[in-house]
Amino acid sequence: MEISGVEIEDTFAEGFPIKVARVLITAITERWAMEAAREATGFGTSVIMCPAEAGIERLARRAETPDGRPGVYIQICNMSFKNLEASLLARIGQCVLTAPTTAVFNGLPEAEKQFDTGAKLKFFGDGFQKEMAYCDRGVCSIPVMSGDFIVEEKMGAVDGIAGGNFYIMAENQAAALMAAEAAVDAIREEEGTITPFPGGVVASGSKVGSRYKFLKASTNERFCPTLQDEGVCILPPSIRASYEVVINGVSREAIERSMRSGIMAACKVPGVVKISAGNFEGKLGPHLFKLHEILG
Amino acid sequence: MEISGVEIEDTFAEGFPIKVARVLITAITERWAMEAAREATGFGTSVIMCPAEAGIERLARRAETPDGRPGVYIQICNMSFKNLEASLLARIGQCVLTAPTTAVFNGLPEAEKQFDTGAKLKFFGDGFQKEMAYCDRGVCSIPVMSGDFIVEEKMGAVDGIAGGNFYIMAENQAAALMAAEAAVDAIREEEGTITPFPGGVVASGSKVGSRYKFLKASTNERFCPTLQDEGVCILPPSIRASYEVVINGVSREAIERSMRSGIMAACKVPGVVKISAGNFEGKLGPHLFKLHEILG
Amino acid sequence: MEISGVEIEDTFAEGFPIKVARVLITAITERWAMEAAREATGFGTSVIMCPAEAGIERLARRAETPDGRPGVYIQICNMSFKNLEASLLARIGQCVLTAPTTAVFNGLPEAEKQFDTGAKLKFFGDGFQKEMAYCDRGVCSIPVMSGDFIVEEKMGAVDGIAGGNFYIMAENQAAALMAAEAAVDAIREEEGTITPFPGGVVASGSKVGSRYKFLKASTNERFCPTLQDEGVCILPPSIRASYEVVINGVSREAIERSMRSGIMAACKVPGVVKISAGNFEGKLGPHLFKLHEILG
Amino acid sequence: MEISGVEIEDTFAEGFPIKVARVLITAITERWAMEAAREATGFGTSVIMCPAEAGIERLARRAETPDGRPGVYIQICNMSFKNLEASLLARIGQCVLTAPTTAVFNGLPEAEKQFDTGAKLKFFGDGFQKEMAYCDRGVCSIPVMSGDFIVEEKMGAVDGIAGGNFYIMAENQAAALMAAEAAVDAIREEEGTITPFPGGVVASGSKVGSRYKFLKASTNERFCPTLQDEGVCILPPSIRASYEVVINGVSREAIERSMRSGIMAACKVPGVVKISAGNFEGKLGPHLFKLHEILG
Repeated sequence: MEISGVEIEDTFAEGFPIKVARVLITAITERWAMEAAREATGFGTSVIMCPAEAGIERLARRAETPDGRPGVYIQICNMSFKNLEASLLARIGQCVLTAPTTAVFNGLPEAEKQFDTGAKLKFFGDGFQKEMAYCDRGVCSIPVMSGDFIVEEKMGAVDGIAGGNFYIMAENQAAALMAAEAAVDAIREEEGTITPFPGGVVASGSKVGSRYKFLKASTNERFCPTLQDEGVCILPPSIRASYEVVINGVSREAIERSMRSGIMAACKVPGVVKISAGNFEGKLGPHLFKLHEILG
Repeated sequence: MEISGVEIEDTFAEGFPIKVARVLITAITERWAMEAAREATGFGTSVIMCPAEAGIERLARRAETPDGRPGVYIQICNMSFKNLEASLLARIGQCVLTAPTTAVFNGLPEAEKQFDTGAKLKFFGDGFQKEMAYCDRGVCSIPVMSGDFIVEEKMGAVDGIAGGNFYIMAENQAAALMAAEAAVDAIREEEGTITPFPGGVVASGSKVGSRYKFLKASTNERFCPTLQDEGVCILPPSIRASYEVVINGVSREAIERSMRSGIMAACKVPGVVKISAGNFEGKLGPHLFKLHEILG
Repeated sequence: MEISGVEIEDTFAEGFPIKVARVLITAITERWAMEAAREATGFGTSVIMCPAEAGIERLARRAETPDGRPGVYIQICNMSFKNLEASLLARIGQCVLTAPTTAVFNGLPEAEKQFDTGAKLKFFGDGFQKEMAYCDRGVCSIPVMSGDFIVEEKMGAVDGIAGGNFYIMAENQAAALMAAEAAVDAIREEEGTITPFPGGVVASGSKVGSRYKFLKASTNERFCPTLQDEGVCILPPSIRASYEVVINGVSREAIERSMRSGIMAACKVPGVVKISAGNFEGKLGPHLFKLHEILG
Repeated sequence: MEISGVEIEDTFAEGFPIKVARVLITAITERWAMEAAREATGFGTSVIMCPAEAGIERLARRAETPDGRPGVYIQICNMSFKNLEASLLARIGQCVLTAPTTAVFNGLPEAEKQFDTGAKLKFFGDGFQKEMAYCDRGVCSIPVMSGDFIVEEKMGAVDGIAGGNFYIMAENQAAALMAAEAAVDAIREEEGTITPFPGGVVASGSKVGSRYKFLKASTNERFCPTLQDEGVCILPPSIRASYEVVINGVSREAIERSMRSGIMAACKVPGVVKISAGNFEGKLGPHLFKLHEILG
């Protein structure tokens, strides 16, 4: 299979179940909403050593937000609802409550699972908080030094999927990176997914396990171009760099849509040779995303 | 005392001891160095509920970096060296090793305390890593899918200070925020400090303790302008919003310099009424920063 | 009339007829599309002394662009179609043809007036250009050092309107500016309009004419807060700074929509006291935009 | 000659004399100084069809600016002092006077040639302007709706050089572009030069003249990779895209320094094959910049 002259390998991405909360942050300007969103989703690339996986889903137009201000949807992901609740409390409490001019709304008001994050955060008001209806939502209003901080009482979460992914293999690092940036741009236009790594891109795709007992994941040496001379790298000489885009999302459909958009965007970049995907022969998870089916 | 017509209250900021590591991230362009730096320092506003305090210190010119590429200095702070070592390993391993085109250098090579962070991260190479001299530093080179990741073996840390701060009190939220942004811009030009909160600004300055046993910090109601009618807020009606800028740094001198620069910048913004600072009558820490002395 | 507690003056903005071309720039990433768009619309605030009025309308999603790449709609405006044709040729030829990875498409393919801008630019190919169909458009492909530059043969233009506007009057400069930024953010979400001034904002609203014969426009002293002591400024002391947002667009409806969105956004910013608008008692133009009607 | 494995061709860049004005724009924050600078330097890539060549030189630290606010140095270039004076008046008057919170200072106070740009712009004040000393400079203060606009009376200019340049030739478009971005980043750190094209980069390097009488410049077909099959392109198949970086500056030394920094930065990007430069066998100008001498 080929797209814009780029070979699509007949392989699949392997994802695993994760719990996903979705939060809408609004602020006085788009820029301040983004500042809060970045702080709240930082140190959130992989649950291997981060306290959560987290990322920015997309900008929200004023017409979509309860308070008519510009907004940003973020997602926070943990392996259990218990850890997710702790992550929500800590990340919203420390990174959004503290951010200038923000308000926080439930990004999944229809979900069955609802945490009372706002209702817990309100105690920061030390008795001066108020429960109220605001823009048709049940919120808590907490007096702070810069005004009142509004946070919705409930925050919804769903059973989602982590580890959707594809590899962009190219003639050189710059082509792979430019294509990764284009892919992440495209995925930012889609609903329901995040790309939790820095700038949405993984420079160091890994395999499960290692020769060292204390390491759960290690470099995927078969795809490391600087190991071509040693015969360890199985890539042809035409591929001298690969980046991975990892996608988490609220549903299988959302991840498929973002994989499709991201791959289509990457294939438009000159110097891209091949699209592949990361899987671990079923060791990692039950969610398989076959490239040829998604792109067919 | 007055600066540009703004009253400087005769009070002091109260800081506390913290351990500070300083790391230099370089990348192919300034933009990618910043992406890595933002991910690595996210979810890092306050040790109350974040796994570390962290922030971007300043950009590094090419002439300053070992590999001649654009760079960003970041700082990561924890209460103990033990936790700091864990933070360094996790944040560099998960957020910089994974970021496109980055390399990581020791930002405090002269410090007495040196962690072997790079030497530990190298095992990600699963046996294919190499120890080598590079740009006059002892580094590990780890093959990854996009090339080789270079990380210096040692990362230095010092006994620093957290909680340097000042309050910007203004006629309204916008004036306080614009002044805070100007202050943070100015502090970004200084050596040795970070402003760990979102965009460098704290919207919700807190007091130590609360009426609820389970809460270590809560809103500083005496400075909450929406509590003026209830008589709880002690501010005059001319002050309707305040933002706090919190500063951590490698030394007392660095924090004093940044407090001075930040306050001078804030006072240039029309609508700012008063500069104050947060202290807790010695409950929090031993480092006192008297505004009148610093600005004298 | 009041919105969110802000007084809306019973007055009107006065616009004048202008010719408007609309161009869609695509590129490998959103960032590079923006670089080209900014260069092409620079030095384009007012036809008084700029060779054209020009600005960025809005981002275009991949799904909207002929080549499926991220895009930016820009508008270029002149008093006559003749000058507009010259502006298009110069601005696309010098600022977009020269910009990395860009392609240029007709942003008004349905308009009656169509310039053959692409068909003229093609001669830069010095005989090596090709006419072809591409993404369902008639384009010229011009070989350049970085690949092929694609430009649609025709560029459409319409009879539009310049000088739609509103004033944001506030307690201080920061509140007025933050509100102006919020207004411009909101207008960026709307179809069919631009805000041609720097960052979308006018700091120095003007009146028609001056006491000096050689000056066609001069400061609007009645609204200059630093002239309050001299009795020249007619504003109440509660207003200490105003910014103007000027809006050009392809139609009356587009300008009305953007005025409404912009004003609604501005009124959400604390410290804003009043919304007014600039008119010149019919000296400037025939298009009147009554605030109370637009917001009613 | 080789740098980091990249071949440096034994050739030279050919520049031509131009008049260069240098202006310092300050504002309340770095972001607003940049907005003004971008508007003022837009539509300013080449004097062939732009009213001036213009660009951002570098950021100015607070410690460097007369008013202690963040600043940006820009340059504006024309073939004659007469046109340069008109450009200064129009670009500062239309794009900086109108920009929020800006002030304008002379960026070349020591130059022999001084225009009285500020002294002319002051008439916008319609009789309410004031001449005064401010931060040790002779300025005019013009009341505007948002406060007072400060502009220095004099603006200095020198005999400078335009058309300093180098070509970055690479395996593909993305590598050439990433290297160009890195080069422009590096040049932004240097004193005294600008890169006037969009994002600092030229996608469509040209030769002098064309087969069409009405065209002064046309595509440099010998370097157009898509003409390789026709035998028109003289590049080897290993080069599939080139970008040019064009540099103007206040002196020969400044341009040499920026060429060196830019080339060194470009050579660090994987996929770059060769550095060359544009010359026209002396047809264009008397200033020759030999790559091997500059990099020697």
